[in-house]
Amino acid sequence: MKRALPVTSRDIARFLGVSQSMVSRAFDPAGKVSPANRARIMEAAEKLGYRPNAIARSLSTRRSGIVAIVMGGMENPFYSEVLDKLAAALDLAGFRSLLFRAPPGQDVDGQLPALRQYNVDALIVASASISSRIAEEWRRDSRRIVLFNRTISDADVPSVSCDNFGGARDVANMLADRGHRRVAYVAGPRQTSTNREREAGFLAGLMGAGSSLVGRVDTASYSFAEGFRAAEAAIATKPDAIFFANDILALGGMDYLRGTAGLSIPRDVSVVGFDDIAMAAWPSYLLTTVRQPLDRMVELTIASLERDSATKEMNNIPIEIVLRNTIS
Amino acid sequence: MKRALPVTSRDIARFLGVSQSMVSRAFDPAGKVSPANRARIMEAAEKLGYRPNAIARSLSTRRSGIVAIVMGGMENPFYSEVLDKLAAALDLAGFRSLLFRAPPGQDVDGQLPALRQYNVDALIVASASISSRIAEEWRRDSRRIVLFNRTISDADVPSVSCDNFGGARDVANMLADRGHRRVAYVAGPRQTSTNREREAGFLAGLMGAGSSLVGRVDTASYSFAEGFRAAEAAIATKPDAIFFANDILALGGMDYLRGTAGLSIPRDVSVVGFDDIAMAAWPSYLLTTVRQPLDRMVELTIASLERDSATKEMNNIPIEIVLRNTIS
Repeated sequence: MKRALPVTSRDIARFLGVSQSMVSRAFDPAGKVSPANRARIMEAAEKLGYRPNAIARSLSTRRSGIVAIVMGGMENPFYSEVLDKLAAALDLAGFRSLLFRAPPGQDVDGQLPALRQYNVDALIVASASISSRIAEEWRRDSRRIVLFNRTISDADVPSVSCDNFGGARDVANMLADRGHRRVAYVAGPRQTSTNREREAGFLAGLMGAGSSLVGRVDTASYSFAEGFRAAEAAIATKPDAIFFANDILALGGMDYLRGTAGLSIPRDVSVVGFDDIAMAAWPSYLLTTVRQPLDRMVELTIASLERDSATKEMNNIPIEIVLRNTIS
Repeated sequence: MKRALPVTSRDIARFLGVSQSMVSRAFDPAGKVSPANRARIMEAAEKLGYRPNAIARSLSTRRSGIVAIVMGGMENPFYSEVLDKLAAALDLAGFRSLLFRAPPGQDVDGQLPALRQYNVDALIVASASISSRIAEEWRRDSRRIVLFNRTISDADVPSVSCDNFGGARDVANMLADRGHRRVAYVAGPRQTSTNREREAGFLAGLMGAGSSLVGRVDTASYSFAEGFRAAEAAIATKPDAIFFANDILALGGMDYLRGTAGLSIPRDVSVVGFDDIAMAAWPSYLLTTVRQPLDRMVELTIASLERDSATKEMNNIPIEIVLRNTIS
């Protein structure tokens, strides 16, 4: 006869003559139980067909092992690389990734109640923003949070980011060292902290080097189409070089400049991006760019989730400029 | 004084003098409760600070609303588009997406116990395979499953895919109509159903048209680097045209052919891909390719999850060839 009800931890406990709590502890990777008892319990569980329920367990341990990654769409390929690496690293660390979509640039405050319902232990907020009040409330609830590739200025919330300011300042200095004095900037969306920091660093670098910003063009999103569109306005200001706030904008811009405008890069104009996404290294582009230290950023994110702590090294992680073919 | 314990549904029930089960039903979108009682319960919950726990609720309703998407890495940009669109559509349908990584080409049989633990209602398997035995066992457990962009031949498991065979056969016919009689094929990984179906369709088309397959090159993964590498062997067979099993292979191939080999596309050789990823339309490539009807595939996937049913229209969804600049 087939059992009508699923096997429970109580059945295992009775079968072995041990306490039910020992059975639960045996299935919790952090639970205290001797190796011999854990082995007996696993064997009995296998024999009786017991399947521990991670969700039921989360109700008693208050840990579900689920980390929600909040991000917008993946129009910017940097974020598909981020998701890929974060999910792989969380997997290795024994967490599961719940994916929450947020419209890019919008805050995720409204999503927090839903995340609480799913008993999410921790939150990684990438390509989205969160108010400091809501982030602090989330932490008071003994849940963890890390902002990825963004910062909120007025709160004590752990965040991981590279040195966006310093990277962009280095670009300005490099352009000046190579004799580019008339420079244009294609900005990312105004509400992003990445754009604010990169633009501030770039302007500081230009000032220090005595170069001129001859043009500045806004974009509505970090996307190929917006870079393509913005390049037309940027080139009209007759720059020696154009710095795009990120790579996907720069790739779109290159296709406008070479294709539609018939210019040669870098002979007629130099182009620099930021991120070093995979496509920046494709032979059709070979874009000179600022490399975000993505592996290091992911590593620090996981470490911060595990310890619920922020460290100084988590922000302003040093960057490097990758010199390819788009700069003279 | 601050409450030491969280407010429960029992507290709400006592406060209002209703049954605890009515409170639970009020928080279940499918639960039967009058609008007036639901409103009273919501108001009391708001007042007392009650937060219904979706996971606890899932234990009683046996529905968690969580759909696991199983996929490998996102080296092939087609899958970041798939994930983006699936997650958006699941969101709209009221589900949450749990992301499970699987090494590409490996089966996910070993992951099923973990998925059961998280009380996942349904499974979308993309860029991974599953044995028919395990897929059927999962369904007997009254959970739902859809295979995305792949099929298993020997099981009655719902799957969604475009007409890979017909699309590739159409490519062979188009090449013949345009006078290309010496044709090479760059294959995807052997274990993928997409490669099997596309290769079979392409060969059927060549035979019917009286064209010759002058070269066939294997690849280890659907990636830019493999396409770049394979193009060298493919061009050595002196073809008029090369059909790559998907777009990311074709883009890598184009960069080898134009950059390293110094050839002109399509003057020296025509190139065709499959998928129509975003980059295929970038001005640097303008790749002629077979468009997968991704929106339609996602729509049918969600419908099949909701109904737990398979329909004939789910497989062999008609494709269209997108003519761009890489074919003469």
